[in-house]
Amino acid sequence: MSNTFGTLFRYTSFGESHGTAIGGVIDGCPSNVKLDMKLIQREVDRRRPGQSDLTTTRTEADTVEFLSGIFEGKTTGAPIAFIIRNTQQRSDDYEHLKDIFRPSHADFTYQQKYGWRDYRGGGRASARETAVRVVVGAVAKQILANKGIEIHAYTSQVGAIALDKTTAINFDAIENNEVRCPDATTAAKMADCIRTVKADGDSIGGIVSCKILNVPLGLGEPIYSKFESQLAMAMLSINAAKGFDYGSGFDNVALKGSEMNDAFVIKNGKIATATNYSGGIQGGISNGEEISFRVVFKATPTISKKQNTINSNGKQIELQAHGRHDPCVVPRAVPVVEAMAAIVTLDLLLLSQANQYG
Amino acid sequence: MSNTFGTLFRYTSFGESHGTAIGGVIDGCPSNVKLDMKLIQREVDRRRPGQSDLTTTRTEADTVEFLSGIFEGKTTGAPIAFIIRNTQQRSDDYEHLKDIFRPSHADFTYQQKYGWRDYRGGGRASARETAVRVVVGAVAKQILANKGIEIHAYTSQVGAIALDKTTAINFDAIENNEVRCPDATTAAKMADCIRTVKADGDSIGGIVSCKILNVPLGLGEPIYSKFESQLAMAMLSINAAKGFDYGSGFDNVALKGSEMNDAFVIKNGKIATATNYSGGIQGGISNGEEISFRVVFKATPTISKKQNTINSNGKQIELQAHGRHDPCVVPRAVPVVEAMAAIVTLDLLLLSQANQYG
Amino acid sequence: MSNTFGTLFRYTSFGESHGTAIGGVIDGCPSNVKLDMKLIQREVDRRRPGQSDLTTTRTEADTVEFLSGIFEGKTTGAPIAFIIRNTQQRSDDYEHLKDIFRPSHADFTYQQKYGWRDYRGGGRASARETAVRVVVGAVAKQILANKGIEIHAYTSQVGAIALDKTTAINFDAIENNEVRCPDATTAAKMADCIRTVKADGDSIGGIVSCKILNVPLGLGEPIYSKFESQLAMAMLSINAAKGFDYGSGFDNVALKGSEMNDAFVIKNGKIATATNYSGGIQGGISNGEEISFRVVFKATPTISKKQNTINSNGKQIELQAHGRHDPCVVPRAVPVVEAMAAIVTLDLLLLSQANQYG
Amino acid sequence: MSNTFGTLFRYTSFGESHGTAIGGVIDGCPSNVKLDMKLIQREVDRRRPGQSDLTTTRTEADTVEFLSGIFEGKTTGAPIAFIIRNTQQRSDDYEHLKDIFRPSHADFTYQQKYGWRDYRGGGRASARETAVRVVVGAVAKQILANKGIEIHAYTSQVGAIALDKTTAINFDAIENNEVRCPDATTAAKMADCIRTVKADGDSIGGIVSCKILNVPLGLGEPIYSKFESQLAMAMLSINAAKGFDYGSGFDNVALKGSEMNDAFVIKNGKIATATNYSGGIQGGISNGEEISFRVVFKATPTISKKQNTINSNGKQIELQAHGRHDPCVVPRAVPVVEAMAAIVTLDLLLLSQANQYG
Repeated sequence: MSNTFGTLFRYTSFGESHGTAIGGVIDGCPSNVKLDMKLIQREVDRRRPGQSDLTTTRTEADTVEFLSGIFEGKTTGAPIAFIIRNTQQRSDDYEHLKDIFRPSHADFTYQQKYGWRDYRGGGRASARETAVRVVVGAVAKQILANKGIEIHAYTSQVGAIALDKTTAINFDAIENNEVRCPDATTAAKMADCIRTVKADGDSIGGIVSCKILNVPLGLGEPIYSKFESQLAMAMLSINAAKGFDYGSGFDNVALKGSEMNDAFVIKNGKIATATNYSGGIQGGISNGEEISFRVVFKATPTISKKQNTINSNGKQIELQAHGRHDPCVVPRAVPVVEAMAAIVTLDLLLLSQANQYG
Repeated sequence: MSNTFGTLFRYTSFGESHGTAIGGVIDGCPSNVKLDMKLIQREVDRRRPGQSDLTTTRTEADTVEFLSGIFEGKTTGAPIAFIIRNTQQRSDDYEHLKDIFRPSHADFTYQQKYGWRDYRGGGRASARETAVRVVVGAVAKQILANKGIEIHAYTSQVGAIALDKTTAINFDAIENNEVRCPDATTAAKMADCIRTVKADGDSIGGIVSCKILNVPLGLGEPIYSKFESQLAMAMLSINAAKGFDYGSGFDNVALKGSEMNDAFVIKNGKIATATNYSGGIQGGISNGEEISFRVVFKATPTISKKQNTINSNGKQIELQAHGRHDPCVVPRAVPVVEAMAAIVTLDLLLLSQANQYG
Repeated sequence: MSNTFGTLFRYTSFGESHGTAIGGVIDGCPSNVKLDMKLIQREVDRRRPGQSDLTTTRTEADTVEFLSGIFEGKTTGAPIAFIIRNTQQRSDDYEHLKDIFRPSHADFTYQQKYGWRDYRGGGRASARETAVRVVVGAVAKQILANKGIEIHAYTSQVGAIALDKTTAINFDAIENNEVRCPDATTAAKMADCIRTVKADGDSIGGIVSCKILNVPLGLGEPIYSKFESQLAMAMLSINAAKGFDYGSGFDNVALKGSEMNDAFVIKNGKIATATNYSGGIQGGISNGEEISFRVVFKATPTISKKQNTINSNGKQIELQAHGRHDPCVVPRAVPVVEAMAAIVTLDLLLLSQANQYG
Repeated sequence: MSNTFGTLFRYTSFGESHGTAIGGVIDGCPSNVKLDMKLIQREVDRRRPGQSDLTTTRTEADTVEFLSGIFEGKTTGAPIAFIIRNTQQRSDDYEHLKDIFRPSHADFTYQQKYGWRDYRGGGRASARETAVRVVVGAVAKQILANKGIEIHAYTSQVGAIALDKTTAINFDAIENNEVRCPDATTAAKMADCIRTVKADGDSIGGIVSCKILNVPLGLGEPIYSKFESQLAMAMLSINAAKGFDYGSGFDNVALKGSEMNDAFVIKNGKIATATNYSGGIQGGISNGEEISFRVVFKATPTISKKQNTINSNGKQIELQAHGRHDPCVVPRAVPVVEAMAAIVTLDLLLLSQANQYG
């Protein structure tokens, strides 16, 4: 609840953008798993601010320190706590925002809900919290990888520039560019789009697509912990996410049943489906096909353009932000989407062990 | 988890399509609430099968019987159990499907996950379960109504026929037609569309839009129980739902920050927003504006057309279903979407009481 | 929470003493388990009111009706709902108690907590609710029995009459008498004691001891879901329970470490302990030895003797109860203690599957 | 679950005896609460090892560092993370125990459950974890104190030396001696007892009694989250705890209903009880009287005397521990019992806000 996510494999997240540190505690991680610490740091680096000219200029080393639960390089079954120290916080940047409710930010709602707020850099509402998810996801990914399960997210749209849906996705090409779009030509257009809005002091949104490969049959707990339901909750908890769909989703709403039903066939001696409008999930349970979903992100609300808004005294004022921010969150959201997908998948994998017993 | 939904206001659902009864137990319902039983039955009737020629021909009275938790017409704080008996089940209809995995149904995944299955009418995977949600939602709605909170869902798209986004929504007109679209002209086109696919032995999907009015400021528990995250989970748990978005959602992905930021202004002496691309939620917390979201439903997988599929022996067969089914689930999904929205909202309302204390 | 118990194997209970029915919903029961319905009813009969002259004169058939989750005699993995109808409720018996707060009952606290109450027979606070636990426990017991795990509870004390601690317990003798004490001589004394207090219009308490045999090594989830911690919570949730201890417990508090440490030895080629002051649990985790605990029950607060108390107007009155009640709850608490022990054990067994993975 | 405790006010604990740090994350702490950091440290000091010659010789500063959730001295509603660094760990002390299963310790069960273990100082199973509880409890206590609620625990028995039950308890005298017994004469005898067993290389257990004062009417969530049930779970999760009782408990089992029923009377114009055998809880709900319970602790299993046991190769060996340990855990358990009582009480207080609504 609230700052904890997951059932059997679960974690609790803490920390503010400009506090001492952010971090998390993983509980329920199976014991006896060898962890590759470099892989964990590499994932965190994929989300790191300041990684390219398309992202915020706040640069953070984002070094992960583990405090517990790992002994001689392996998990012990005890909670795994970790912290990432905030080293580049400049609270002065935000002093001028102390009494201002920035448009489409969480300033106003936090103030009202909690009676007051840590205004420095958005406090707890900052997307900096997503670094915690990436650490947890990197642990989950390693356990999943031991089972052959892979997760690949990529940027499929920035503003109006969309990856052609018929393009075959080369997962190896995702990290070839700073936008994280597997198609080089489209990626270049997306990068141009982001640079243009940045130059204009503006921002832009987009879509992250994600595939989970080699998911065993039977994950997902109907009725209220269906695989898609857990993914949707996970994805909508990411800052700036505005929507989720899977399989046929929103785009195929005009298709008829006869056009979108996935006929069962025999492939390689096993029952499979001829098409995959189901997105790998039927009745809330993985059917062994590729799981496929999308998450849409809005344009980041922090822009350099002047905006009208209200301060905490209810007075209208003109705001011109000069904090550091991303013109487009999508490229850095890619590893966050993967992380949340990994956490959901591992949790459902552990849960599924209790389905048949005795 | 699994068959339980909610934190403080929560319920557990049970029952199969062709078993003795379906039902639920509400736990955490505040005491001392007078309940209008007719209102509850009226909501159930809105979801009832056989209500028009656009729906399945299975007709069920769907009478709600309460077993506990209500004394002299008021809640006592004890769990509220209720059942709806299955009266029109015809298991013979499904005998021929015993060994068949229907395309895009849950037959195959249930069989694999649980080792065997109740094949009668989809068993637990049947959308009949959603009647339970409607009962619970009808209780939640009454408590919300006491606080002035209203929930209105409607059909905004069927197949390719979409309600014009600029149309002002007249909530009172939603129940004027069997499609539950507030615009009569569009509703007629939608009904035609459904009748055409039905005549063709086919099916079609669509979109339900929903508005929650008069939600107090401060609902939603960041980071992982954000209002949108809870709504997404709730909506994706509904049978045939393939996606969720709120506020600007998928359709406004090309807008820039300067175009979609919601400037704060003073309205009627209170802080409000000039526009509502945020969909009434900022930082996961309700901001006092109208909450606005959409849910997309796929074409129901049961069609009368012949389809190729596989039976449980792995043999390819030709299937022609002759069970009773809806050509389009959207009109009957409207009250289900409302119910889940009500449950989420009430739960967050109760949770928010613990935010400030002392 | 509240009316739900358990994590993976969990159930929700509902119903009042004088309502339509009591019942429950089991969620998370593994699929494909053949259930012996007669065994379930037999367990319920062990708790049934009116089973002997030592218990209440309210007689109830307490017939269990299953509504879902079982198909062709086997579990399907779907929630298992069941009800037990109240047939012998006589609300008139309680009309005179409507405005009276009976001493040491829940009348006063329910009234204050919920603002009003269902006063008939104690409403939700009635021990009648424990029949629900017995049904759930009977399901759990069958799954445990398939794994060789046995649970045996018995009456070890009534008032001042205690079973000698050095007595070897013959589990087969427990049901030989109506007190459920495995030693016939002690049982006779206990029965006499109960008859004497009953004749005097009074009541008496006692202790139930319980052993869980053949529990596999490794059950219990440290730190906060230790086996003993879960048992304690479960036992203290039973009506009239006032305490719990396990292993060395309260009685051996004067022993030194050197006297109560359980030396590890090799027995039958396996690591075991020479003594069992640990009660089968070390560090919150089962160690493979017999799990052994006790639960103390107070004298039932309903007595026929005249008592002074207060009514809801704050006036002092004299109360003489004439409802039906047990002079000693201990004999009927025996199957309830077993049921809760079974539920805890099965839940921890399912949870333990996630400890090592990968 | 497992390393998380509580529902609305809840925390997650992490850390091993000889790792980098132990710590916790409090989630659900109400916002806008001013925290006295010195009070928190003072509570931790009460539990600190090395505080007197009656305790272990391991001395730790046990300085609490907060990482998040507190801004300008007040809670923000965000998770409150804190760590206590381990500064005096000497892993070499435990190298010789690497392959040995110490009697009545968790070595054997952790090894079996998790497949391997952090053997240094008991790893996660060390009572050092209870320092985390004390920090969380110290936060809870401050919020409770703002409501007038006080919690006082004390040592009521060490070995066979028991505080006379008729002694009036002077809460102010508890901290006057290192045993934390409010009666000086009894305290001196208890201290002598502990010094004697210590000199003998042995250990001894005892009983902590606890009173919660000024608890409002209505806390506790029947049926399965009754106040006593939550306390029992909390107390039995403490290392070395072997039992819990409240009110009349185990010692008054021979009393009849007519002797132990708490008659309602009017005191100071309010409904109260003449006696308090109920221990302040009726039907699982606080009745406004003093809540009174006990927790029994076994003799700490670490002793200097030679013991026979088994190593991980199944060979019998002779063990003589030379780590640092407490001859009696009871004096240091006093603040831990208070902390857990505070956490349970605050959680139930927050939960009770949802009972009546509308």
